[in-house]
Formats: sequence, C-alpha cells, structure tokens
Amino acid sequence: MKAVVYEGPYDIRVEDVDDPAIEQPTDVIVRITSTCICGSDLHMYEGRTDAQAGLVFGHENQGVVEEVGSGVQRVKKGDRVNMPFNIGCGFCFNCERGWTGFCLSVNPGFAGGAYGYVNMGPYRGGQAEYLRVPYADFNCLELPDDEDHEHDFAMLCDIFPTGYHGAELAEVGMGETVAVFGAGPVGLMSAYACLIKGASVVYVIDQIPDRLKMAEDMGCVPIDFSKGDPADQITDMRKGDGVMKSIDAVGYQAIGSGEDGEEEPNVVLEGCIKVTNPTGKIGIPGLYVPSDPGASDPHASQGMFPISFGKLFEKGLSLGTGQTNVKRYNRFLRDLIVAGRVEPSLVVSKEVPLEEAPEAYERFDNREEGYTKVVLKPAA
Amino acid sequence: MKAVVYEGPYDIRVEDVDDPAIEQPTDVIVRITSTCICGSDLHMYEGRTDAQAGLVFGHENQGVVEEVGSGVQRVKKGDRVNMPFNIGCGFCFNCERGWTGFCLSVNPGFAGGAYGYVNMGPYRGGQAEYLRVPYADFNCLELPDDEDHEHDFAMLCDIFPTGYHGAELAEVGMGETVAVFGAGPVGLMSAYACLIKGASVVYVIDQIPDRLKMAEDMGCVPIDFSKGDPADQITDMRKGDGVMKSIDAVGYQAIGSGEDGEEEPNVVLEGCIKVTNPTGKIGIPGLYVPSDPGASDPHASQGMFPISFGKLFEKGLSLGTGQTNVKRYNRFLRDLIVAGRVEPSLVVSKEVPLEEAPEAYERFDNREEGYTKVVLKPAA
Amino acid sequence: MKAVVYEGPYDIRVEDVDDPAIEQPTDVIVRITSTCICGSDLHMYEGRTDAQAGLVFGHENQGVVEEVGSGVQRVKKGDRVNMPFNIGCGFCFNCERGWTGFCLSVNPGFAGGAYGYVNMGPYRGGQAEYLRVPYADFNCLELPDDEDHEHDFAMLCDIFPTGYHGAELAEVGMGETVAVFGAGPVGLMSAYACLIKGASVVYVIDQIPDRLKMAEDMGCVPIDFSKGDPADQITDMRKGDGVMKSIDAVGYQAIGSGEDGEEEPNVVLEGCIKVTNPTGKIGIPGLYVPSDPGASDPHASQGMFPISFGKLFEKGLSLGTGQTNVKRYNRFLRDLIVAGRVEPSLVVSKEVPLEEAPEAYERFDNREEGYTKVVLKPAA
Amino acid sequence: MKAVVYEGPYDIRVEDVDDPAIEQPTDVIVRITSTCICGSDLHMYEGRTDAQAGLVFGHENQGVVEEVGSGVQRVKKGDRVNMPFNIGCGFCFNCERGWTGFCLSVNPGFAGGAYGYVNMGPYRGGQAEYLRVPYADFNCLELPDDEDHEHDFAMLCDIFPTGYHGAELAEVGMGETVAVFGAGPVGLMSAYACLIKGASVVYVIDQIPDRLKMAEDMGCVPIDFSKGDPADQITDMRKGDGVMKSIDAVGYQAIGSGEDGEEEPNVVLEGCIKVTNPTGKIGIPGLYVPSDPGASDPHASQGMFPISFGKLFEKGLSLGTGQTNVKRYNRFLRDLIVAGRVEPSLVVSKEVPLEEAPEAYERFDNREEGYTKVVLKPAA
Repeated sequence: MKAVVYEGPYDIRVEDVDDPAIEQPTDVIVRITSTCICGSDLHMYEGRTDAQAGLVFGHENQGVVEEVGSGVQRVKKGDRVNMPFNIGCGFCFNCERGWTGFCLSVNPGFAGGAYGYVNMGPYRGGQAEYLRVPYADFNCLELPDDEDHEHDFAMLCDIFPTGYHGAELAEVGMGETVAVFGAGPVGLMSAYACLIKGASVVYVIDQIPDRLKMAEDMGCVPIDFSKGDPADQITDMRKGDGVMKSIDAVGYQAIGSGEDGEEEPNVVLEGCIKVTNPTGKIGIPGLYVPSDPGASDPHASQGMFPISFGKLFEKGLSLGTGQTNVKRYNRFLRDLIVAGRVEPSLVVSKEVPLEEAPEAYERFDNREEGYTKVVLKPAA
Repeated sequence: MKAVVYEGPYDIRVEDVDDPAIEQPTDVIVRITSTCICGSDLHMYEGRTDAQAGLVFGHENQGVVEEVGSGVQRVKKGDRVNMPFNIGCGFCFNCERGWTGFCLSVNPGFAGGAYGYVNMGPYRGGQAEYLRVPYADFNCLELPDDEDHEHDFAMLCDIFPTGYHGAELAEVGMGETVAVFGAGPVGLMSAYACLIKGASVVYVIDQIPDRLKMAEDMGCVPIDFSKGDPADQITDMRKGDGVMKSIDAVGYQAIGSGEDGEEEPNVVLEGCIKVTNPTGKIGIPGLYVPSDPGASDPHASQGMFPISFGKLFEKGLSLGTGQTNVKRYNRFLRDLIVAGRVEPSLVVSKEVPLEEAPEAYERFDNREEGYTKVVLKPAA
Repeated sequence: MKAVVYEGPYDIRVEDVDDPAIEQPTDVIVRITSTCICGSDLHMYEGRTDAQAGLVFGHENQGVVEEVGSGVQRVKKGDRVNMPFNIGCGFCFNCERGWTGFCLSVNPGFAGGAYGYVNMGPYRGGQAEYLRVPYADFNCLELPDDEDHEHDFAMLCDIFPTGYHGAELAEVGMGETVAVFGAGPVGLMSAYACLIKGASVVYVIDQIPDRLKMAEDMGCVPIDFSKGDPADQITDMRKGDGVMKSIDAVGYQAIGSGEDGEEEPNVVLEGCIKVTNPTGKIGIPGLYVPSDPGASDPHASQGMFPISFGKLFEKGLSLGTGQTNVKRYNRFLRDLIVAGRVEPSLVVSKEVPLEEAPEAYERFDNREEGYTKVVLKPAA
Repeated sequence: MKAVVYEGPYDIRVEDVDDPAIEQPTDVIVRITSTCICGSDLHMYEGRTDAQAGLVFGHENQGVVEEVGSGVQRVKKGDRVNMPFNIGCGFCFNCERGWTGFCLSVNPGFAGGAYGYVNMGPYRGGQAEYLRVPYADFNCLELPDDEDHEHDFAMLCDIFPTGYHGAELAEVGMGETVAVFGAGPVGLMSAYACLIKGASVVYVIDQIPDRLKMAEDMGCVPIDFSKGDPADQITDMRKGDGVMKSIDAVGYQAIGSGEDGEEEPNVVLEGCIKVTNPTGKIGIPGLYVPSDPGASDPHASQGMFPISFGKLFEKGLSLGTGQTNVKRYNRFLRDLIVAGRVEPSLVVSKEVPLEEAPEAYERFDNREEGYTKVVLKPAA
C-alpha cells in the first residue's frame, strides 16, 4: 500500500510499504478515508526529534473497518470509525481512570502511545491506505454510517479534544473570562471549547492576522501580541482586571514580541501567570518537551526554564498540563457534531490526495496561506 | 495592653500598646487566650521582609469575645472563638467562592489580608492581650464553651488548614500514595491530612531526625534526604514506581542535600516532579514569594527559578499553589477535634507566657529542640 | 409608599404602606426599578398557603440603592443592584458553603428565607417602591451603571438561576442529551441553561403550543405530551435510547396527559425515571412542598406520593432537588448578559405599572396569552 | 468439577458440573481459592426471584489464573486475582466512564452483568472449583503473590466496594456527620468507609446487638431502632441537629420498629429524609428492585412506594442509588489492605469447605450467630 514515509529532515515520501495485518486477536485493520497533518508532525519533519528513517507518519486517522481480529467483539467490518491519536489498552491503571493518553501497556517503559510518532511505541501511522488499530474495541469511536461531517469528525482524533483539554485543564466554567495564547489549530479549538462551555469573554492572542480573524469570527476578542504585551492589552481593556483562566496553546516553541522572533520557551507561561487573576487556573495543552536538542541553552535543551513561581504562588494559581486523553471527550464532541451544534472543521483549510503529502508538508511547514490544517485522502 | 512588637531584625519586645477598639459596626474585640509563633513570623523576624518597626506580630489567635460591634449578629460576648489567619470580608468575589485567603476587600490593591503581617493590610497581630477582629460574624469560628482542646484548636488558625490544603491541592484520595517534602509543622500536618483522607502510604522527607521520628510515629514512612536523593529512595522502595501525589511543604527556602546547606529554591519542586507518576498532582502549600531581597541571584530575588517544565508536561502533571483558605476547612477540622478523631496539637512543643516571646523567638529561630511550635499565653 | 398587598385569596391590592427603614447597620434601602411576578406568587394568590392578609408580595427585585446602613462597606448609595430572591447572611454554615438558599440565620427555625413570601421570614416583598435589603454587602449583586439589560438582569433574581440550577442538579455536561419537563419560565430557562452548558440535544416537554414554540426557537426539540407519553416519544425518536439527564421543571402541580387535567404529583418524576438512561441524573428545580392543603389525598397533602424507586435504583440514577442558591450563579450569569452571550429576557412577555398589579395577577393566574412573565414598574 | 447449584427454593446442592472453558480469546479460567456467600444470594435462595434450577451461584470470587485466552495480554497463568461481582467489557459508554456496574455489552438488553445471578447474564457463578472470567484483562484485579490477606481481599469483590459506594453516593467528606442505616455486612462496610474518609461522627442504626457492637468497636455510635425512632434518637443526642449525610444500607426489605417486624419498604428512606439536614445527601447502596413478587401490595410489587418528596425537596436533599461499580474502588481499597491500614475481613465470621455450602446457606438464611459472612473454600 501507499504510505507517507519519513526519510530524513525535510524529506518525506509517499512509498509502497507492506499492508498491515492483524497481529493480536483484539486488532482491526482500518481503510483510511481521511488522515490529517498535525503541527506536531512538523517536529519530526524538521529533524528536531530522534525519528528514524522509515517511520510512517499519521496520528489523525479516520476510516472504515476492513478486517477484524477474533477477539474483537464490538467493532464490525464496515463500521465507520475515528481513532484517537493516543492508543490505550483500556485496562491499565491510567486507562481505567480515563487517562488514556498515559496508557501503561502500549508503550512499555513510558506512559502513553500513539500512531506514527517517535518514541510513542511500535505503531505505524495512518497517513497510508490502511492502519492496524490495536485494542480495537477500546480505540475505535463509532461514527454515523453516512458520509456526513467527514472533516468535522476528523478533528476528533486530536486537535478538537486537545483544544478542549486546554479548557478542561483550566476548568473553564460558565460566565468566566479566559485568555487563550495561540491561534493555531489547537488554540482556535481551545477558544471554541471555551465558548461551548459558556465562557463570557474569550481573548485570543496571536500575531498572524488570518488567525486572529478566525478567532474574532468565532466570537472571541483578538489580541495582537506584536502590538504590545498581551497581558497589558487585556488588563487595559478590562480596566485593570485580569482574567479568571488562561490557556497556553503554544508550548515551548513560543516566540516573544521582539523583532528577532527568537524562541523564548517561557514567554507564554509568563504571560499566563501575569494575566490570570488570583485564584485562577492555567490550562496547558501546548507541548513542552523534556529533551530539545535544538534549544538555545543547556537548561532549555532539557526542557527546563525559569518561571515566576513566586508570583504564581502569591496568586494561588493552579496549572494543568499534558497531552489530552482523547477518549474522555470524543464521544461527546462527536455528538455535538452530529447534533449540528459545532463545526470544528472550520479550521480545515485544504484537502489533498495522499500522494501530495510531500508538497503539503513543505507548504504547511512554511506556514503558507491555506495550509493551516490539511486533510490527506488516500485513493483506496 | 502588652503586645509583641517588632523593633527591627532579631529584635522583638513585649511592650505596652493601646488597647484595640471597635472601628466598624461589624468588629469584635477578642481577649487572647492562645497565640502561636509561626514559621512565617521568622521571615519578618530575620529582617528578610519590609516589615517596619512597631508592627505587632501574631496571626494564629484564639480567645474569648470581649466586646461586640452594633452590626455583629451571630457572635456574642463570652463566645470562645478561633480566628483564621487570613481575614475575609465574606462578600467579595473570592470570599463568596470559598477563596477567603484571597479576599478582595480587606487589603485594597492585593488579594488577601492577615493579622500582624507585613503587606497583609492594616491589621494588628494577636500576640497581645486583645485583638480587633473585623467582619467578626465571618471571621470567628465558634469553639465549644469548655476549655478543652485549647492547643488542638489553636492549630486551626493556620498550620492544620495549611497542611490540609496541601493534601487538597494534590487532590489526595483514598488509597493513594503520597510523598510529602518537609516535616516541619506544615509538612507534618500535610502528612497527617493525607492519612486522615485515606492515603495508603505517605512518605515524609526531611533530614532532622526528630521530625522524621514524628512522621514515623504518625504512620508515615520517613525518608532522610541527607542520605541520598529522596525521589530515588522512594522509587527504590517501590520497585521502580513513584507516587501518585506529592506535596511541597517547604517552599523557596529549600535546601539541597549538599554539605553546604545552601538554599536551592527549586530543589523540592524538582523532587516533586521527579517522584510523581504521570497523571499525578503536586500540592504546594510551602511558601514561594515574588520578591526575596535575600536571594542569591537576580532571578531568584524576583521569585523566578528554573523548573523542568518539559518533564512536568510529559508526565501530564498538575500543580496547585497558594496560601490556604482557612475557612474552607476549619469547621470540619474542629469537628474532628471535638469528636476526638484528630489531635493536631501533637506538633506543639511548648507553651510560654507572652512576656517570654523574645526568648521564644530567638530559640525557635535557632531551631532549638523543644521550640518547633510555641504557644504564647497572655496573662489577661 | 405604594406596595402590592395580599388581602386574601384572589384579592391583592396596591396600597399605601410605611416606607421601609434601616433596621440593622448592615441593611440598605433600595428604590425598586423592576420587580416581577413569579409563578410561585400564585400559590399564595390562590390561597393554597398560610399567607396572611397584609403580606407585601415580591421576591424578584431590582433597583437603585437609596440609603445605606453604617455597617455596610461595599454597597454605595446610587449603585444599581439586583437581589437574589433568597436572603442569606453570608456567615452561617450553609451560606459559607454556597447554599445561600438554605441560610440558617435569616429565618430562625428554618433553612432559608426570602422577600415577601409566606414562611420565609419577616421580610417584606419588593412589589413596592422601596425595599429593605438585609446583609446588603452579601445580598446585592452589582449591575453596570447604565440602564441596559433591565429585563435580562431582572431574570437573575430567580428564574434564570432556578432554571440553571436544574441543569446543575442534573450535572448536564458537554455533548449530553437532556429531557426538560415543563416549558414555563423555569423550564425554558433550564433548557436554555442546558444549551449554554453545551448539551447536544435538549427535548422540552409541554402541551402549550406557544411554550413549545419558544423551546424550539431556542434550539430544543419540542415534545407535546398531550400527543402521547413523552418518554415514549423521545425513546422512539432516539431509536430506543433514552437521555442521559432529565430535569423536572414542573413540580407537584404536574398534570398528566389525561383529558381531565387532574394533578398527578408524581407524573413528571415518573417520566424522568422512565426516560433517563442507567447512570443518569435527574435535576429537580420544580417545587414540591411538604404540606399542601389542596391536595387530593392525605398522603399528597403531606407531600408524599409513590415513586418507582425500584426502577430508579436498578438504573443507578441520582437526583438532586431544592430551591436554587441564586448567589452561586448570578455573577456569572450577569457577566454572560453583559457580554451579550445570553438574553434571558426572551421569556418576559409584558411590563406594566405597579398600579396594574391586580389585573396582571388575575390574567397571569388565568394563563392568558402575553402574561407568561410580567415585570412591574413602580412609579418612583 | 464441584459447584453450588440452585435446585429450587431453599434447595441448593454441591454437584458435579462441566469444567468451564475459554469461550472468547479475551477469557481466562480461574481456580477459585475463596468465594463468599452474599446476602443477595438469599433473594434467590428463598425463591423470591426468577432464578431457574441449575444456576451455579457465586459472585464474590477470588483465585489463581489457570488458563489464558489468546487475546489476553496482561493477565498471566499463575496470577492471584480478585474478580468484581459486576462484569464489564471495558469499552462501552458506561464502562469507559467508570460505570462498570452498568456495562452495556455483557448482558444485552440490560445495563449490567454479574456472575451466578438471575437476570445478570449468562455467566456461571464462582461457588465452584473453577470460573470463566470474560474480558479478563479488564475484570481481574491483581493481588500480591503471597497468600496474605485472603479474607480481606475477598471482601473486594462486593461488600467493601458496595459499602464504600454508599459513602461515595452520599459524598461523605472530612469532618462530616453521617447516619448509616443497617449494620449488616454492607452497612458495616459503609460505616467503615465513612471513617476511612474522615467523617467525624458516624451513627449506625440496627437492632441486632452483635452488629451494633461491631459498629461501636469500629468507632461508631450505635443506635438501636427497636428503642425508638432512630432519627429522633440521633437528633436528641445532637441537641436538635441532624446529620449532614445518611446512607441506606438496608433496601426494600426494611422492617420498621413495630413488634410485627413486617417489611415497610420506605421506612429507611423516610428515616434518611428525616435525619438528614437541609443541603445534605443520601447514599443508597441498599437494594431496591423494580419487581418483587413477594411484596405486600401491588405498588410495592413493582418497586413503587410513597416517599416524602415534599420534605426531601424543602430540605434540598440529593440522593444517589444503584449497585456499586467495583472497579472504581477496588485497586485503591486493595492498596489500603496491603498497606495494613484497613481490615475489611473484620466482618468475616466463618470459613467452610465448599461442600458445606448447603448448611451454610441454611444457617445464614436463619441469621444464626457466626454466619454473618461466610467464605467457601473449594478443595481444588
């Protein structure tokens, strides 16, 4: 079958690879209908990870069940299914408590596994015609049989639940005010989640006009951080008050408002600490990594950087971090899509054949307009 | 009346000051029967704060109501009462939601007020014969009329709820494993709270043998950090596993296990991040401050220091900080005392007349044996 | 001043009464700008309670502060304020935990007090030119100084928080399905709250076409119970599935779908038990009373009636009841109004001068069109 | 193999039946080391259910894994394991959210399945030498390899988590007061759970002296309901106050304090409503059934009976019901046992060979002394 294969930094190709096969009785094989490129794929693409040549990318996968293992009891051939990017076993201590992003079974020695991602276990990605899905009864979310909402549902693999997780980590509640740092796909989905959860005012901070425009169209207040400290801008608008909650949807590759555009891994966290009122909470779905060879200093290369902890403590702030547990949210978000109450596909900018993946990666990596969120379509 | 007055670094005296008077209709005056010296008083005593000469110390106050303002409706003259160290108004946004440690009314321009403490508002302390208590209906906890449990109840002002808050911030639950860093009064109370809340195994980390002995007597597992990295010691005991929750009951004046005993403000936080399992939570009742003139480097003097945020994120950890909201817990903890189910006075080491406060401060500051937790008794 | 005075069943009059005065230092006097007639006023109006002649009605009150007691510290003369229908002291065990609908201070011997309501304490109602508000710093919600949203804010006294409480008691969450029984003002506000909280599909059950139309316009699915068992209708629509949550916004004066229209106090509860899936929850803001002289049988007159408890248990259902605690929600709901994200005044059907209260009560009691929710305007 | 087989009312026999076999790749076979008789087995034993001759009893099962299906990935031959009485699949909507007592897969058409119980699916019980365990990776709780705590662990199948569930449903918290109705095994375990969770005072209501003695020995206050209305007794002890929470550990076969000892299905619920303070919660682990052929009136035979709902509402009470979800609690409770902090085996009165099951059932059904909780030991 055809698959998107990593060959080295800035070098991915669509190649022929072996078809996947049932390996355990609890596996299924899914024929992929939609598979998205994720911002986190770029970390590998740019060579900032240990990813080895030969890795098939793709952790945002959706399709139709083609073959079913003998131990699978719920999922049937022909079912239309969506797969969370994190793979869970369903029976470990973490999965059982709903922390499926930190499964203790699927990636021995580490908490958490995923498809097609470096260090996330021996699972081939789904930017391909077919995908093996382990613990299929646990990992397949059933979709309505028709072909509606293909793009909306595709957002359920990762970015919608990831954005939503930001709002959950910050415990965003009815009538609250929120500052969301970052208006990339995850930031926009976080802001969207805040609105769905009943926030009163949501500020979205970025410097790219198109993204700020999308946030504004959603009903948020756009804040352009290239025009001044975003916390100060918000506090000025609010006559001296901050916000109750903030969300860091940026992570360690944050850049400050300086002209140089250099990475400052703590700039967004510091912004969150500054703008959030005492008693507030900070949700952090944006990625921080414990090992970053490309970092500018030795501390940062170990994911370590200074934080205004004294201020954080004085305000009595809490913060929550980590990758989302897709399965906590995906059924409910699916039902909102089916009911026509949300349209997360509003962030999808383009659909291209799987064969065009190399070009799509390159343009996405260049932040070209129209390549915010790309869905790949295998021919099969 | 007599009161403990700060005159300058290492110089406190028992002096005559004016008696307090009703200033607002909602005030009462309390005759103090017990008032404790708190570890946080030492920050001022040692001259590491902006405290000015003339300040009357004392935020752990208990006594009997002597005079009642015209707008006070619940509290009566003669009531035996205990006062939370944090002063709340009862009607601001934070008090109403239970965040009485972050009252927006009592200390304009800041979230939170207290008795007898620098920057915590214009409230005289209670290391004195009498104390004015504002918003008395809100701030006085009623005690049983008899004289029982005087020392147990005195722990309700601060350290018992502060220790308990650590366990709450870490969301310690039934059957969980916890590592508590620090076996001072707050650390011991945190460990005690974990046991009361049903933790299965509680590790307590310190290097002072007496304190570790007290932790062990409570039913905890003592860990002497002078004998090796405490996270490693715990992980070894647990055959490679960490703990689900950890509590930092130390704060910014943490010292590492090095021979020099120098302060390393991040050493305990790093220990928490290391020993806590993925999906875990860290409760931080230990004090961190945004301005520390005595710190060793410019960052630290602003309460800023490096944290392994990449590791924290990878593990999906959450953390909660800040001073406790005494009123969230004090009624319930009082009822446990009355029912004979807890005895927080186990940390009280000595009771001395108010007049002997200067000597008690000096010995406490020297960490002399028998001066872990001192209760002062005014003569009145 | 003028006030709406109860003189006996079906006999209310606008009469001159003494102006209210400051009685405690913590009181304020409010000049009323809007005061609504509530469905619960009809219980008294119809003579089904112990209300005595001379009672001034009115527990949905909004206005401007006219006079301030000496112990009031936050509220100022000239402030535009909204008062929760339940009166709290702010410092009893229940108020402190957020249960302000069950205040232990304001109505000795009973948990909870209100303005102008039988058995709810010695507080005159606000269907008048002026109102005394006790514990004013606690009981006054500040509104923006302009005159905007007068009707929206007036819904904050009772029906919006009451409806919202239904959704909270049922713990309605993101993406969930809900059945709301009753499309009167409270039912509509409950359905509205469910949507705001992110429910996916909300069924609203009533038999009055106008009300069902309003529910549908909001985005709910209307169910006309006169056309068949509502649980069956919903289950049919859902291909055999029930809903996750249900809300009883009707209470003890429920009527079945029979032609006779007789009261069946358990008919809505039975519907909730039937339509709610195992593991679900039932929120019950609809009023049930422990003493109903007008009931049809001796059990019912004591608020006692049969419930399918075996079925409830088999399904593992939970249920929550009781009057709302307005202060838990009113700030947040106010902020949603100010942000333009909700418009609870959509249920207001008419505004009339205070003098026309007698006619408005009569027409409202007759369920005349246009009298769903009436706002009275004193002339002052 | 030998198994306890139901042949008809009051007629159970130890007979030879076929050995169980792996039926699905996800099954294991367990050799039983301990299997308990449960109070709920008596419903079948007494002929008050639809149980058919040939049914093998036993849902409290513990043992050692003997054979493993090809799709089982965590559990290994030789593992010592404990099985929750409720069988879950691990991947349905309810199991995923932690409601494993209401699994939608294992017993089609009904929410929930169990071993050896009428209407709970086609699963043979474990009062036998061997047991087939479906979805073994999900349903087997690992125990330490040694043979310690055999009786303590055996309580994890049902009564300890069931009692604990009562405390959870009532949301019993630190320092709270609780009334537990019933001092049978479940009631005692509920009271025990309240103490572990930090309740201040726990009242336990029964009329059997031995049981009340056990409650008192645990640290509870015994209330003998044969000596007067238990709510009144508690309120008198508390000087007019009730309790914050109550637990119904009795269920529909409740008997009143009358001399006749007749069943009054609502008597315990009415007691809970009476003794619980406004704002309180009632946890109901005691069994209520939707169909009881042995009931005294037509309503009761459908599990329907009168409840003082008006009073319940006036007090703003909540209640939670249903069988426990063992897997929510069993790991944590196991860890408390391993840590030596709890000893649920305190309720075990006797251990007998499997062969003596008929006599044990008879004596247990007669409430003979020493037959409160019996553990059966197969010879294998």
